[in-house]
Amino acid sequence: MNAIPESVLSALGAERLAPLRSYPGSRKVYVTGSRPDIRVPMREIVQTPTPGAGTNPPITVYDASGPYTDPDHALDLARGLPPLRAGWIAERGDTEQLDGPGSEYGRVRAADHSLDGLRFPAPPPPRRARAGANVTQLHYARRGIITPEMEFVAIRENLRMDELREQYAAAGLLMQHPGESFGANTPQRITPEFVRDEIAAGRAIIPANINHPELEPMIIGRNFLVKINGNLGSSALGSSIEEEVEKMVWGIRWGSDTIMDLSTGKHIHETREWIVRNSPVPIGTVPIYQALEKVDGKAEELSWALFRDTLIEQAEQGVDYFTIHAGVRLAYVPLTAQRLTGIVSRGGSIMAKWCLAHHEENFLYTHFEEICEIMQAYDVAFSLGDGLRPGSLADANDAAQFAELETLGELTRIAWQHDVQVMIEGPGHVPMQKIRENMDKELRDCHEAPFYTLGPLVTDIAPGYDHITSAIGAAQIGWYGTAMLCYVTPKEHLGLPDREDVREGIVTYRLAAHAADLAKGHPGAQVRDNAMSKARFEFRWEDQFNLGLDPEKARAFHDATLPKEAHKSAHFCSMCGPQFCSMKITREVREYAAAQAIDNTDEAMRRGLQEKAAEFRDSGAALYRKG
Amino acid sequence: MNAIPESVLSALGAERLAPLRSYPGSRKVYVTGSRPDIRVPMREIVQTPTPGAGTNPPITVYDASGPYTDPDHALDLARGLPPLRAGWIAERGDTEQLDGPGSEYGRVRAADHSLDGLRFPAPPPPRRARAGANVTQLHYARRGIITPEMEFVAIRENLRMDELREQYAAAGLLMQHPGESFGANTPQRITPEFVRDEIAAGRAIIPANINHPELEPMIIGRNFLVKINGNLGSSALGSSIEEEVEKMVWGIRWGSDTIMDLSTGKHIHETREWIVRNSPVPIGTVPIYQALEKVDGKAEELSWALFRDTLIEQAEQGVDYFTIHAGVRLAYVPLTAQRLTGIVSRGGSIMAKWCLAHHEENFLYTHFEEICEIMQAYDVAFSLGDGLRPGSLADANDAAQFAELETLGELTRIAWQHDVQVMIEGPGHVPMQKIRENMDKELRDCHEAPFYTLGPLVTDIAPGYDHITSAIGAAQIGWYGTAMLCYVTPKEHLGLPDREDVREGIVTYRLAAHAADLAKGHPGAQVRDNAMSKARFEFRWEDQFNLGLDPEKARAFHDATLPKEAHKSAHFCSMCGPQFCSMKITREVREYAAAQAIDNTDEAMRRGLQEKAAEFRDSGAALYRKG
Repeated sequence: MNAIPESVLSALGAERLAPLRSYPGSRKVYVTGSRPDIRVPMREIVQTPTPGAGTNPPITVYDASGPYTDPDHALDLARGLPPLRAGWIAERGDTEQLDGPGSEYGRVRAADHSLDGLRFPAPPPPRRARAGANVTQLHYARRGIITPEMEFVAIRENLRMDELREQYAAAGLLMQHPGESFGANTPQRITPEFVRDEIAAGRAIIPANINHPELEPMIIGRNFLVKINGNLGSSALGSSIEEEVEKMVWGIRWGSDTIMDLSTGKHIHETREWIVRNSPVPIGTVPIYQALEKVDGKAEELSWALFRDTLIEQAEQGVDYFTIHAGVRLAYVPLTAQRLTGIVSRGGSIMAKWCLAHHEENFLYTHFEEICEIMQAYDVAFSLGDGLRPGSLADANDAAQFAELETLGELTRIAWQHDVQVMIEGPGHVPMQKIRENMDKELRDCHEAPFYTLGPLVTDIAPGYDHITSAIGAAQIGWYGTAMLCYVTPKEHLGLPDREDVREGIVTYRLAAHAADLAKGHPGAQVRDNAMSKARFEFRWEDQFNLGLDPEKARAFHDATLPKEAHKSAHFCSMCGPQFCSMKITREVREYAAAQAIDNTDEAMRRGLQEKAAEFRDSGAALYRKG
Repeated sequence: MNAIPESVLSALGAERLAPLRSYPGSRKVYVTGSRPDIRVPMREIVQTPTPGAGTNPPITVYDASGPYTDPDHALDLARGLPPLRAGWIAERGDTEQLDGPGSEYGRVRAADHSLDGLRFPAPPPPRRARAGANVTQLHYARRGIITPEMEFVAIRENLRMDELREQYAAAGLLMQHPGESFGANTPQRITPEFVRDEIAAGRAIIPANINHPELEPMIIGRNFLVKINGNLGSSALGSSIEEEVEKMVWGIRWGSDTIMDLSTGKHIHETREWIVRNSPVPIGTVPIYQALEKVDGKAEELSWALFRDTLIEQAEQGVDYFTIHAGVRLAYVPLTAQRLTGIVSRGGSIMAKWCLAHHEENFLYTHFEEICEIMQAYDVAFSLGDGLRPGSLADANDAAQFAELETLGELTRIAWQHDVQVMIEGPGHVPMQKIRENMDKELRDCHEAPFYTLGPLVTDIAPGYDHITSAIGAAQIGWYGTAMLCYVTPKEHLGLPDREDVREGIVTYRLAAHAADLAKGHPGAQVRDNAMSKARFEFRWEDQFNLGLDPEKARAFHDATLPKEAHKSAHFCSMCGPQFCSMKITREVREYAAAQAIDNTDEAMRRGLQEKAAEFRDSGAALYRKG
């Protein structure tokens, strides 16, 4: 029996995480599906009434924050989250529980008592597909099965729109501009059948390892809401397990839909266990990072056997998707010779180095079908890595990048033959006029498998602001069809992000993803914008803060610069916000318009207006509201 | 004789402004034109050599910072900047110096000795066109005259590319992706003749009031570099003249191409004098703001006479462009009745209120030709205001907005009949899929007059991050053809920006404008990106900081998170930056590629590779550089 790691518990106790246990002005709600154990979390932002004009409906928004924001959840990081999917997995009857780790490495770590003080206390025993079984969501979908996971995401994507449509309409919040979807087809209502069909077609994935029962399922595909990923990871340079778990919890609260754990250093295995057990969102990793650690950083000593063991180790911990750089083929490596910035993907450079050292084809490519067999036994999804992505505008859309992308398309077909879920990673650094080509080529060459891009950054000249240079590209590629956007923090290219950088990166990507949803015309996407605008117009400050992506920052900015007395002043938002007297003027405008409608002959209008003008002048109302 | 305002001087003395008197790793250079008094400022970023591979050329970049960053300039805010255009204006012989202010208000202020302690010490006497003369750059251009101002901007836009092309090429920095310009046509080399032609066609403007001789001319047009504007302005809520002058000086150092002074409150006139006398960039204002102050905020008491006096007052101080909301016609006001956020432009709501109160057509519209006559006497450019711009996504591209835009097109023609320069203001809040329509309609309806937009924000749900929601839209509309982007700060909708917010806003807009230049394929735009990428790839940290838009922030981010010892570590940029060993791997890749080229029969290659592989393994180099 492992000792409970007191150091971790103390650092991450209820006290430290208390600030993230609720959203300002919000309450956690659950929508129950066809069976009582399908309870889909959402967040409801409560609004205050419009003075003199009645109530405003609560706005339901997507909620990636997990049980942490549920007041009924007793926080205990050493126990992990409740295994809400355990019953669904068990009832399918196609998996079996193992006695212990199936990987050599897992067994070695489990037996190492020097790690007891670091380890997650009681990890669940791993499960695996029964011999001959395939346990992927893609496999079920192709057989016509709607899993609880599929129903869960269908409910989740709808955000109770059916239920709330009338309320929203009554408040004038349903107006939405037609989108330009570039071929995406999102129905007004997402049904479980639609989810199944999209998964079966390979156009969407639900990353959901059978060893991650704590997961609240989510879907990645261009006919669904655009998702974002946040990275974290301890490194030799400093951060601890506690810090990484804490970053994860904060990351999902700010809205990260998945988390990639890119940890390096000595305790990757133990860090990951803590993260997975406490994560309600899918966890992705790049297994080659850990494999490289196991050979002391010597890429040429990597081997298929070692890598295979690493996949099993991580799959049994519950990692939901693996970045696999199987497209870095030997023949493509020379295509990077004339690049300005060579190979900048860490995984890509590791595999390129291995290929050159052995003058052999990439072992991830040659063993790809065996990798598929592992993936299908746990339902780990592929995130086919773009090891040859450009590291600068100059190298964007070049032969190396596109050769790899074409290979990722081939590999997608192979993975699909094994009913393994796939998404495709994309760049990187791309000027705006070259972004669309990336999306179009990905859709064509990778058969509409979901695209998952890093940014792209649209210029290289703004270190310290690369969350912004990349959000510009991310919003665009999301609009064109990218299903998930990997965030970039302000520290990109400069240093390790801290918690505030993670916040800045995630909120920036949430707004970029939402901008993409709006541009695509995602049904209902504009409700929250409309609610914000109405609150703005009506000077409902609390609602403005709470409806925003980062209520705490909005409030802090407001309070820092404006004294309380000035709340109603004209001056604070003179550029494009609502005006001091905009409500008043609009009321006058409405009366005027109504008068016109009643009798809009020129003469009648002129007479009516003369009266109105006199009345207006008599009222003597100043344009500024003083005092 | 006015007393020298000691309070202002002390706050803004050499000591306080010292930090902005140089750029890290840069030197100020001047390019002399056809005559010795045409000296065009630029900034040269000096680079360190590549270890073992020789020097890297200095990179010349656009420099809006004015004499402040010239070590030979003796800073004295109470004297103002040197009047570099004074000779050019005088030699044209079409203006005359007045004895004193031509406006009633100017005379009253000048006579008010209670203001002596606040006033700029010795403002130059105003100039005006001689009777019957037209002194606009458009007038000269149409008569085939190339003014020194036109030559100045031609040199400025070229950034010494002719001179530096070979050096850049030798360093591999000239690679650039073809752009998609949406009809913009920027020649490889900007000649004074091209500038004249663009001005004559109305496609570009040089805002350059004859009473602002301190101005370093710049050009706004879609066939030139995309420009940005930063707003500042004292308000009743707090800030002082010193603070506003200081914000202006910092604003141009961070890269604002023009500054709008949106001051309100008691000392608008005096604040403006300080700003204009110390500004090397064009100053824009919204005269109706001051006019409204003069009638105690009662819009209905505004009159043409009062407004006219305000125009003359400001034109004689040297304001280079005026926002005039002449498109808010009475008939359009009812079109805003059903909007979600009504009228949100301050100028728009003032004029709408006036129209309703008087049931008369907007006096700016009815007196438009008289306004043109004032503009042409000082060469003040129009920035035709979008008083009916949308204040929310919901209201984007609606009938009110577009009706006004069409009127701005009519007014453009009228202004052009008077040889007055014009640009057109645009929104605001627009979802991505509706942005292009704004640009296309502006070009069509306003006859290709330069477009000047605020953002647009592409979502309403991110207060605290609206510099980013708007930079996403700004980069796109800049790509489509907008000539100048008005910045938005993180405090937008929440509070008054402080100096750090101004910095964040300006740098964000600089990167958006640059992204637009790249996407349009602006000649030479990619040089700086390439230099940055090369510095990154070669781990030249100092050069990376200095080549960036905000060297201080980049350095601070780097130093805050990475200890010195870790500089060369692998871990700091594992996402998409250059790798620990990327240079080494690339060298290996290059050798490998060369070997292939020499003898690329399969067998020979295999043999060669076997040798190389053995050699590589023998060298035992670890992928991580440890220690």
